[in-house]
Order: sequence, then structure tokens, then C-alpha cells
Amino acid sequence: MGEIGEFEVIRVITEQASSALNGDDAAVLRHASPNSRAVATTDMLVEGRHFQLDWSTPEEIGQKAILQNFADIEAMGARPIAALLAVSAPLDTPVDFIRGVARGLGQRVGEYSAELVGGDITSGTALVLSVTALGSLGGSLPELTLSRARPGQLLVAHGRIGYSAAGLSLLQRFGRAGVPVELLPLVEAHCAPQLTPGRGMVARAAGATAMTDNSDGLIVDLSQMAKKSGVRINIDSDAIAPDALLSAAGECLGRDPWEWILTGGEDHTLLSTTFGDAPSGFRPIGHVSRSRPDDPVTVDKKTPAYASGWTSF
Amino acid sequence: MGEIGEFEVIRVITEQASSALNGDDAAVLRHASPNSRAVATTDMLVEGRHFQLDWSTPEEIGQKAILQNFADIEAMGARPIAALLAVSAPLDTPVDFIRGVARGLGQRVGEYSAELVGGDITSGTALVLSVTALGSLGGSLPELTLSRARPGQLLVAHGRIGYSAAGLSLLQRFGRAGVPVELLPLVEAHCAPQLTPGRGMVARAAGATAMTDNSDGLIVDLSQMAKKSGVRINIDSDAIAPDALLSAAGECLGRDPWEWILTGGEDHTLLSTTFGDAPSGFRPIGHVSRSRPDDPVTVDKKTPAYASGWTSF
Repeated sequence: MGEIGEFEVIRVITEQASSALNGDDAAVLRHASPNSRAVATTDMLVEGRHFQLDWSTPEEIGQKAILQNFADIEAMGARPIAALLAVSAPLDTPVDFIRGVARGLGQRVGEYSAELVGGDITSGTALVLSVTALGSLGGSLPELTLSRARPGQLLVAHGRIGYSAAGLSLLQRFGRAGVPVELLPLVEAHCAPQLTPGRGMVARAAGATAMTDNSDGLIVDLSQMAKKSGVRINIDSDAIAPDALLSAAGECLGRDPWEWILTGGEDHTLLSTTFGDAPSGFRPIGHVSRSRPDDPVTVDKKTPAYASGWTSF
Repeated sequence: MGEIGEFEVIRVITEQASSALNGDDAAVLRHASPNSRAVATTDMLVEGRHFQLDWSTPEEIGQKAILQNFADIEAMGARPIAALLAVSAPLDTPVDFIRGVARGLGQRVGEYSAELVGGDITSGTALVLSVTALGSLGGSLPELTLSRARPGQLLVAHGRIGYSAAGLSLLQRFGRAGVPVELLPLVEAHCAPQLTPGRGMVARAAGATAMTDNSDGLIVDLSQMAKKSGVRINIDSDAIAPDALLSAAGECLGRDPWEWILTGGEDHTLLSTTFGDAPSGFRPIGHVSRSRPDDPVTVDKKTPAYASGWTSF
């Protein structure tokens, strides 16, 4: 990157993720629908901590950076419309790396009909990506907060639970090249998690009231929701039990797959509560009840076997 | 920071820059005025490259991070309304550092009646701050772009030109403690540049058509505008000539202050073009004429004595 210079690097990025809105001091987004509100979130990804160059392709790193930010927008019941990318990279970073990251970003923003509208690039000793996502919350229904789970509601989920953590454990043991081929879907779920775009809006339209995503760990994230809502959340173990793939990974590594399910983050599975039936694309996994002086989140009404999750430091 | 943990660090930050809008997966901003558009920009600041801990206080680092982003929002003629902060920091970073940065951020967003609405914090080997600013562009007048300077217009400026670069040169020679006291205003202009909030909106309302800010260097930034607009921009040397302070710094360091004025960035001075008089708070510094096959930007109709500017790498 140092050889080709700043403007050429920016050209490489915008070639992979083009938008008519960038290229000035700031991006002016298109007119939002009347009565809508803007939604914003940001995540920083540090090499060695959030991704490893020998485990993930540049495309996957870009895809994941968008997905984890867009999941936060969806978790408010909003529609992702734009992203901004700031990069710090050592001067000897191959331009193919940044091209790949931009391609992955571009693919994912395209799936959501969103655009990469701006960014910043600088040299630095560490490889750090910072993505900001912007969304639009239309209509008059309230946003889906952590604080609006209510006793009597159904707990529903859209997305895998535990796959990302299982994939990480496999990478730690085998490296990317050594993972048994039948377990590769878990690795892919870790390196490039996926959601069906629009599920947050669907749930909000169907009457869901609370939502978050499984980013730090199932029990940790639901505990946040339970505490902020002043409720207890009980998960049915049958609904989140290890499938054949998680069981196989557990046997392969000599690990209990329940640990991945209960404490693994980064699936970015949407977790929501509703008085109605499970919205389209969601499955029921538990119930909300009144707060009690014990665990905010239980599994089959008992203290979870595993509870700790990801911490930033 | 490693000792007190993520949640306590977030508490320290939100204590210094509080907002009712954060604390969920994403921030939902307040309803914008009808017909307004969202504006977004991002900048990444790397320790050792964009700031030095022995030159700037944490408060100044926070203030500058906001100012440089809000200047980009203002340069579209929009109003800054919100900021997001992502931080990567080594585990042994003193919590007082992050408290100071947050205090500086909070002060500056407060001056603009904006809010710090969200963020992310993680450990990493390098100290990196990434700030995203969001603004609102109201009314039906077009935004102030780089491409709308027109022959016959006046070139106007709001803010200092060359102060930041002079301050940097003084820091490089003397360190913060050794700078002669009468030259300290230049150092302060480098470590915590300031603008009067709202000047971008004022210029847009008064009929300005193009605007940018002096972030990479006066000639570099105006050349971008001249090229994108297909015009030539001529600066009157009298209007940007070194004042007593810049002259004194030049003598003190044996440097030509014109180099700071023409190539120094980071003043974040608003540079705009208009067919009318200089808007309130702006002063005339030149004129726009038809494009010619020579320099896009001239000083007294001649090639500038210095032209190169800041590059990201």
C-alpha cells in the first residue's frame, strides 16, 4: 500500500464497493422516508484479536465487519442503509489485502441494498478496521430495545447459535487448512457469519418489542436484555441443543458443545421477544417471565452450565 | 484499563460525554426535521502519527478528533448532531487517559449541541481512535460540494491558516514544555484547533456553493476543489500573509512561514466560494476564474512557492 499511495488505495476500495455518495468531505445520504429516524453503530476490528490473517480471507474479514455492524442495526428493527470504513494498516500491507476486504464489504452491503459511503485510510503499526453502520428506522412502531422484554412473551431467534465459537475452537486446534472437511461449515460461520437481511424489520412489523444479537455470548447478551427489562428469560434446552455438526465438532475436539452454544459470541443471531407467534424466519427458543432473585437467564429454569462470554479486554 | 474492565471504561466515557441515546445495540437518533438528509464522515487517529502523548493532553486529543470530523460535516453546509467513538488501546493504558479523551470529546460535541451516541472499545497493541460524525442537512438548498466552485466567485475562509503546521514545527523542535510562551497559541491551534460552530450552515444559507476544509494543506485542498469544479482558484497573498505570530515562529525556527500557510493542514479552516459577499465570519482570500492549462491553484496568479501537503502514507 505504501508504494501505490493513498489515492490509489482509495480507488481500489471504491472500485470494489462503489457509491455515488462518497468523494467529498462527508457523504450526504439520500432523503429518508418521512418520519423515519437515523440509527448508528460502530465496531472496531483489531488483527490478532478479532481476526487472524491465516484463518480468514480478506473477503471474509470485510464480510464479517459489515455483518456484525448491520446485525446491530437490525437488532433495533431498522434497515441498514450505509457503512463507513476507517483503516489503519502497516505500509507493507499488500494492496490485494485491502482489495479483498473491500470486495467482502461490497458484497455484504450489496446484499442489504446498502452502500459504502465514506471512509478514511492511514498508515499505522497495527492493522485495525473500524466500521460504522447507518440505518433507517421507519414508521411509528418503537425501536426494538434491550429494555422492552415483557413477562409472558415468547423468546425467538433467527440464525445459528454456537457455530462461530465452534469454528474458532477448530481453527485454534487445526488452523484453516487442517480442519476436517465435514466441519468446515462451522469455520465459515466463524469467519463470515450470515443472516437473512431484513429479519429485524420483519420482527418489528410483526409486533416484537425487544431484540439484541448474539455477539458476546448467548447467556451474556440475554442477561443484558433480562436486566434492562427487569424480567427473567428462560431458554428451552431442546430448542438450542447441539445439532449433528456441533456434536461432531465436540467429539472431534473433546469439548462439550454446550459451552459454545451458551457462551460463544459472534454468531450475531437475532434474539427477540414477542407476544405473538414467532415472526417469519424466527424459531421459538424460550419464554420471558417475571424477574426473580436468581439468575436473570436460565436454561430449563436452572442456572446455565456455562455463562461467561467474550470481553473486550 | 485492563484492571477495571470494559463496562467500567464505558461508564467512565459516558460519564464525560453523556447521551440518552446510547446503551443499546445501536443508537436511534431523534427525528430529523422534515426534508433533511443525513450526512456522515469518519476519521481515524493513530498514536505517533496523528497525535503524540507527550505533546497533546488527552482532552486535546478528544477535542481535535471531534473538530476534524465536525469540520467535514460543516464543509457540506450541514449541522453536526452526533458522534461515535471506537477505541483500540493497550491494556496498560491509564483509565485517566480515556477519561480525558472522553472529556475533550464531550466538551466539543457540547459546543455543537451534538451528542456522543455510541462506540466500541477493545484492547490492541496500538492506540487508535476512530470517530464517526453524523450531521443533518436541512432545507432545500444543495449541499456544499467540492465540485460547485464557479468562475467569478469569491473565495472566502473561516479560521486560521498555517497555525497548526507552525505549532507542529514548534513541538518537533522544543517539545511541549520548551516552546517559548508567546508562541503557545500556535501549539494550541495544532493540538486543539477550533472553529466557530455553525459557519458551514451560515455560508450555505448565504448562497455559498462549494466548501471544503483545510485538512491536508491549503494548496492541496483547494486544488481538489479546483479540479473537481473545473476552475482555477487564485489566492491573494495579502489575505493569507503571515501575521505577527507566524512571523515570530518563522524567525524562532529559521523557517519560512509561507510553507506552513500553503502546505500545512489540520487547521480545518472552512474554505468556500460564493457569488455574494463573504458570509458572516468569513473573510475574502481570493477568486475563482476559468480553468487554464496551468496550476489549478495560484497565489497572486503565480505558481505557489510551496504546494505539497499531508499524505496518509
